Amino acid sequence: MKDTYTIAVVHGDGIGPEVARAAVAVLQAGVQAGTLRFVDYPAGADHFLKTGDSFPAASFEGCRTADAILHGAAGIPGVVHPDGTEAGLDFTLTLRFKLDLFANVRPIKLYKGVPSPLGRPGPIDYVIVRENSEGLYAARGAGALLREEVAVDTLVQTRKGVERIVRFAFELARTRNGSPKDGRRRVTCCDKANVLRTYAFFRAVFDEVAKEYPDIEAEHVLVDAMTVHLVNKPTHFDVIVTENMFGDIISDLGAATVGGMGMAPSEEVGDGIGFFQASHGSAPDIAGKGLANPYGTILASILMLRRLDQRHRDSRLKLGADRIEAAVCAGLEDPALRTRDIGGVAPTNQVVDALLKRL
Amino acid sequence: MKDTYTIAVVHGDGIGPEVARAAVAVLQAGVQAGTLRFVDYPAGADHFLKTGDSFPAASFEGCRTADAILHGAAGIPGVVHPDGTEAGLDFTLTLRFKLDLFANVRPIKLYKGVPSPLGRPGPIDYVIVRENSEGLYAARGAGALLREEVAVDTLVQTRKGVERIVRFAFELARTRNGSPKDGRRRVTCCDKANVLRTYAFFRAVFDEVAKEYPDIEAEHVLVDAMTVHLVNKPTHFDVIVTENMFGDIISDLGAATVGGMGMAPSEEVGDGIGFFQASHGSAPDIAGKGLANPYGTILASILMLRRLDQRHRDSRLKLGADRIEAAVCAGLEDPALRTRDIGGVAPTNQVVDALLKRL
Ligand SMILES: CC(C)[C@H](C(=O)O)[C@@H](O)C(=O)O
Ligand SMILES: CC(C)[C@H](C(=O)O)[C@@H](O)C(=O)O
Repeated sequence: MKDTYTIAVVHGDGIGPEVARAAVAVLQAGVQAGTLRFVDYPAGADHFLKTGDSFPAASFEGCRTADAILHGAAGIPGVVHPDGTEAGLDFTLTLRFKLDLFANVRPIKLYKGVPSPLGRPGPIDYVIVRENSEGLYAARGAGALLREEVAVDTLVQTRKGVERIVRFAFELARTRNGSPKDGRRRVTCCDKANVLRTYAFFRAVFDEVAKEYPDIEAEHVLVDAMTVHLVNKPTHFDVIVTENMFGDIISDLGAATVGGMGMAPSEEVGDGIGFFQASHGSAPDIAGKGLANPYGTILASILMLRRLDQRHRDSRLKLGADRIEAAVCAGLEDPALRTRDIGGVAPTNQVVDALLKRL
Repeated sequence: MKDTYTIAVVHGDGIGPEVARAAVAVLQAGVQAGTLRFVDYPAGADHFLKTGDSFPAASFEGCRTADAILHGAAGIPGVVHPDGTEAGLDFTLTLRFKLDLFANVRPIKLYKGVPSPLGRPGPIDYVIVRENSEGLYAARGAGALLREEVAVDTLVQTRKGVERIVRFAFELARTRNGSPKDGRRRVTCCDKANVLRTYAFFRAVFDEVAKEYPDIEAEHVLVDAMTVHLVNKPTHFDVIVTENMFGDIISDLGAATVGGMGMAPSEEVGDGIGFFQASHGSAPDIAGKGLANPYGTILASILMLRRLDQRHRDSRLKLGADRIEAAVCAGLEDPALRTRDIGGVAPTNQVVDALLKRL
C-alpha cells in the first residue's frame, strides 16, 4: 500500500483527449481524494507532426516510473513512417516492448442495456489473454523489403514467452469473477497448429503448462473456427489465450459482439507496471464533436484500479473500482446515458456528468 | 469447349465422402449427361494412416491433369506430422502450392431461409478473395524450431503475388453478379499496414493496381476492424482482398454470418485448373451419421461449373449451374430441407433426394 499512486496520462489523438479526460474525471470522483495523482505526458501522431517525435524520452520516463499508465487513443491516418507503418502507434508499441508488457488482457462482457449485433447473444462474459511481447508483432520495424519486390516479416514464438502467457491465462481462470454459462472454468488455446510450426509449438507448450492446472479445463480451437464460435456460442468461453496477431483480431471480434470497440477495455501488464486504455482507435471522424463513447476508457480505469489493488492491497482502490463499476452499470442501463455507437443519442458530456453525479 | 470434362474427385475423411457423393450426384442430375466424367482418387488422413502417404503421386497426377478437382473434406484430429501440423491437410496445401492456385475465392452469401446469428443481417452478398500462394502460409513446412526454445515462421509477400491477387479481385468486382447494398462496386483491401511492413507493402501494391480500375471504389480496412464490420455492416462489402492467413480467418467469420461453415463454398484457382470444396472441415463428430450439410459442397460445384464455362464457353455447364443453383435456393427455402446446422432436422439424404427430384 502506498499513500498516493501516480498515474501517467497520455491523451493522444482524435477522440483520445475526450475519453481520457472523461476517465480521469470519473476516477477523481470515484476514488477517495489523495489516492491517485495524475500527470499528463505528450505522445502520439499529433505530437509527431508538431515535433518530429511521436514519443519523447521524457514521456517514456514518466510512464516507466509511474504506478500505471492511462491512455486515450492514438493515430492520425496518413501520418506514417517511411516503411508505411503508423507513427501514432509508437506510443503503445514502444510501451509494450520496452516495458515487456507481455499480457494483454481484454475482457469481453455484454453489459445490461448494451445492444449486441447478435440475435441471441446470451450472457457473454469471457476474457481474451493476448500474448503481447512476441508473435508476429516481434517483426515490427524488423521486417525486410527487398527492391520493392519482396517483403518479409517473422513470427517468433519463444518457450519463455508462451509459458508465461499461458500460465497467466490459467491463473486468471482460477481467480476471475464470472464464468462461462456451463459454470466450468476453462482456458481455450486459440492457434493455427494444424498448418504452422510456430502455432504447433504454442499449442505444445500450452499442453505442458495445462497439466499444472488439473482443476481447469483446457481445450484448443483453431483461429478460423474461433471466429465462428465467438459468433455462435460466445457464452461457452471463459479465458482464451492466443498469439499476438490472433489476439488483435479476435479481440476486436469479441468487442463487436458486446457493443463494439467503445465497450472494450484493454489492460497490458508485465511484471511491474500496467498500461490501460480502451481497445478502440482515435476515431478521427468523430473527434472533437463530443460524441465519443467514454465507457471503454472508464472500464479500463476500473481494470487499472483492480490491478493496483491486487499489487498493493489497498481498499481505497477496490472500493473505488466497485463504485465506478456500479455507476457504469447503472449508466448503461439508462437509455438516456448511451452514446450513439451503442444505440443511444447521449453526447460524451452527458454520460460523464451523470456518472459524476452518481459517484 | 470440350466434349467431356474430367473431374478428379477426392472424398477425404470424416464427412468428406458424404458431401462429395452428394455433390457428384447433384452434378450428374443437373448437368447434361456426358458432359462431366468423374474419377475418384484417394488422399487424406485416413489414407495416411493406412499407407503412410497422405497424397499419393498417382492422385496428384490425376488431379493435375483433370479439368477440375472436387474435394469432400480432410483431416483426422491427432494424425499429425512430426512438427505437429496435420497430415490430412497435405492434399489441400500441396494442390495450392504445386499447382500455384493463387486465388482462393470465397463467396459469402446469405440464402433465403438460412438463419444468421446476426440480429439484422440484411442481404449479405460479398466475396472474399484470399491470396493463396504466399503470405504466412509460405512458411508451412519451412519454419524453424530451435532446441524446443524458439519457433519461427516467415510471412513473405511478393510484388508479383500481390499484384496478381489484387488484379484478380478488381476483375471479379467488374464482372460478378450481386453488389453491395449501396450498389457501388468496390474492392476492400484488408491488411495490418499500420503495424507490419509486409502488410504495408500489400497495401502499397493494392493502391498501385487500384489506379488501373478507376471505375471501382478502392478502400482499406485493417484486419481487426474488419471483424467488426463483417458483423456490424456486412452488406457494405462487395469484394475483399487479403493475405493468406487473414483470408483464412475472415472467411470463416463471413461464413458464420451466413449460416456457418456448411454454407460456405471455396474455389482455389490459378492460371489453369480449379479446385473446389466446401470451406468446412471433416467434422469427425458427425461423420458417418448422415447428418452432414451437403449444400457447401454443392455450392462449390456450382462455382466449378461457372469457372469451367468461363474457360470453355460451354452452355451445358452454364445451364447446369443455373439449374442446380435454382434447386439449391428452392431447397433452402423449404424448412424440411435444412440440415441441423442451419436450423432444420433433415438428414443429408433427404436434402440430396429432394434436390435430385427437382433436377
Ligand atoms: C493500435 C495498434 C498498434 C493495436 C494493435 O495492433 O495491437 C490495436 O489494434 C490494439 O489492438 O491494441
Ligand atoms: C484445411 C486448412 C489447411 C485450410 C487453411 O488453413 O487454409 C482451411 O482452414 C481453409 O480455410 O481452407
